[in-house]
Amino acid sequence: MRDLHSLALRRVNGTLEVLDQTLLPLQEVWLPVATSGDMIAHIQRLAVRGAPLIGVAAALSLVLEKEGLPARALELRQARPTAVNLMHAMDRMMAAKDPAREAEAIFDEDVRLCESMARNAAEFLRDGDGILTHCNTGGLATVGVGTALGAIRHAHESGKKIHVYVDETRPLLQGARLTAWELSRLGIPHTLICDNMAAALMAKGKVQHVVVGADRIAKNGDAANKIGTYSLAVLANFHKIPFMVVAPSTTLDPKCASGAEIPIEERKAAEVHLGASPVWNPAFDVTPRALITRIVWENGLF
Amino acid sequence: MRDLHSLALRRVNGTLEVLDQTLLPLQEVWLPVATSGDMIAHIQRLAVRGAPLIGVAAALSLVLEKEGLPARALELRQARPTAVNLMHAMDRMMAAKDPAREAEAIFDEDVRLCESMARNAAEFLRDGDGILTHCNTGGLATVGVGTALGAIRHAHESGKKIHVYVDETRPLLQGARLTAWELSRLGIPHTLICDNMAAALMAKGKVQHVVVGADRIAKNGDAANKIGTYSLAVLANFHKIPFMVVAPSTTLDPKCASGAEIPIEERKAAEVHLGASPVWNPAFDVTPRALITRIVWENGLF
Repeated sequence: MRDLHSLALRRVNGTLEVLDQTLLPLQEVWLPVATSGDMIAHIQRLAVRGAPLIGVAAALSLVLEKEGLPARALELRQARPTAVNLMHAMDRMMAAKDPAREAEAIFDEDVRLCESMARNAAEFLRDGDGILTHCNTGGLATVGVGTALGAIRHAHESGKKIHVYVDETRPLLQGARLTAWELSRLGIPHTLICDNMAAALMAKGKVQHVVVGADRIAKNGDAANKIGTYSLAVLANFHKIPFMVVAPSTTLDPKCASGAEIPIEERKAAEVHLGASPVWNPAFDVTPRALITRIVWENGLF
Repeated sequence: MRDLHSLALRRVNGTLEVLDQTLLPLQEVWLPVATSGDMIAHIQRLAVRGAPLIGVAAALSLVLEKEGLPARALELRQARPTAVNLMHAMDRMMAAKDPAREAEAIFDEDVRLCESMARNAAEFLRDGDGILTHCNTGGLATVGVGTALGAIRHAHESGKKIHVYVDETRPLLQGARLTAWELSRLGIPHTLICDNMAAALMAKGKVQHVVVGADRIAKNGDAANKIGTYSLAVLANFHKIPFMVVAPSTTLDPKCASGAEIPIEERKAAEVHLGASPVWNPAFDVTPRALITRIVWENGLF
């Protein structure tokens, strides 16, 4: 069993661990994973999150199981309903003759996919751009450099002077907690805003590109992503700002003809509010293809 | 000196007190106001907030001063730069022969203005409507029934079956903390959402009207209001949902030809985030007249 290392997942001497993303940026705590059931619990409470990372993490946790793999894979599939990379990873694991090697192949492939996507998508980011991004799509969301944030990193490392605007991404603050943490570590200039400030920032002319990831892309190009993405797409459209989705081909679900068929997970009220008022808390929304300037994946354009 | 009572401001036996809105909904603590300097401190840390309430509260605090009224009035004007009701109240206090009576007149007038606005604006809300509102524009933001929330209350009390969607209003959560509290007290059915969920809610067909207040309206009808208002206006425009501003005529600033001339207060990073990343934290944004379906005030339509 090979050792594996990424920003939020590692396997050393056969011991699988994940970084608890709910505690970032204040604490960096690694959680052991002894069974696929452990991984399900970590995924459900978002200690492990990010569509590509969830797929890789689930595959590696399945390797820990000695028997009943089909049942374990079915449980893993149900851990989060919207991201489809998880479903693809489980399909591959079930079809594989050697699940241990297949999980490593899925890990290695995610690293390569991230590199390709980052290179492809960075070409659309120009020197001097202000770039608005949402949620977290970096090294914490994948086992490589990330999707949208990988493209931003690639543009920065290739010498383009860019400034990144990160929105908080309520209710769980993946932008404020995770993306700001990654950008700080990478030394990429950035500014944090609240989700409701994006429109005012666009009106001031500070945003030249909006770049986001995706959790599931329907056959017609409609894309489900973290709640708030659709809002940014409408705002970008109004302000005539290009809106780019960066996601691996494993995000495509040809079984969904359009975004209307993508299941949207609704989560607990307590994530939003400790008060007594009823809460609506969808974890994702769907951006129609018409509002997306381009979808970039590992092979170029969707 | 007459006793005065409102939801967040009271004067009993000559003692002026304000409800600390930073502690709602968890605690209801009344703060004494002995000087205009006390009121400035309360206004700056948003213990007292809401454009109409700030004007009334500042006027009443000026009555506590025995001398140097012009200097005290100038300090009060500078407490918050965007809302213009404060400036109008100070103008009236400086021009008045009897400041104590003038402050009471300003109080009484706000109650009447709220009643008229609520009645006028409620006519545009229909039975069965889902109504999205932002920030807090109710009894906590005025000394009457409120502006936008007053209209919602009037529609509810006149028997229309409405459902109110309240967005959190980051960073200080006036929607989640204050509007949800008021709606609960009034028994008006409502659901709390995060700011970034408004677009998805509109796409689901749940919103038939967006109703907000204003802190300053330029001569051309551009309106400054709590950050996030402009975002809702763009989203409402895209989804073909009417967008109504409800504000008293004291919100008009004829000296501002357009919204570009309205000063926008920027506040501390710590309101958004305790991390190390730089933050942009404007307290208000400007919605251009073209995105506003109608502005309702005490005399009808703007």
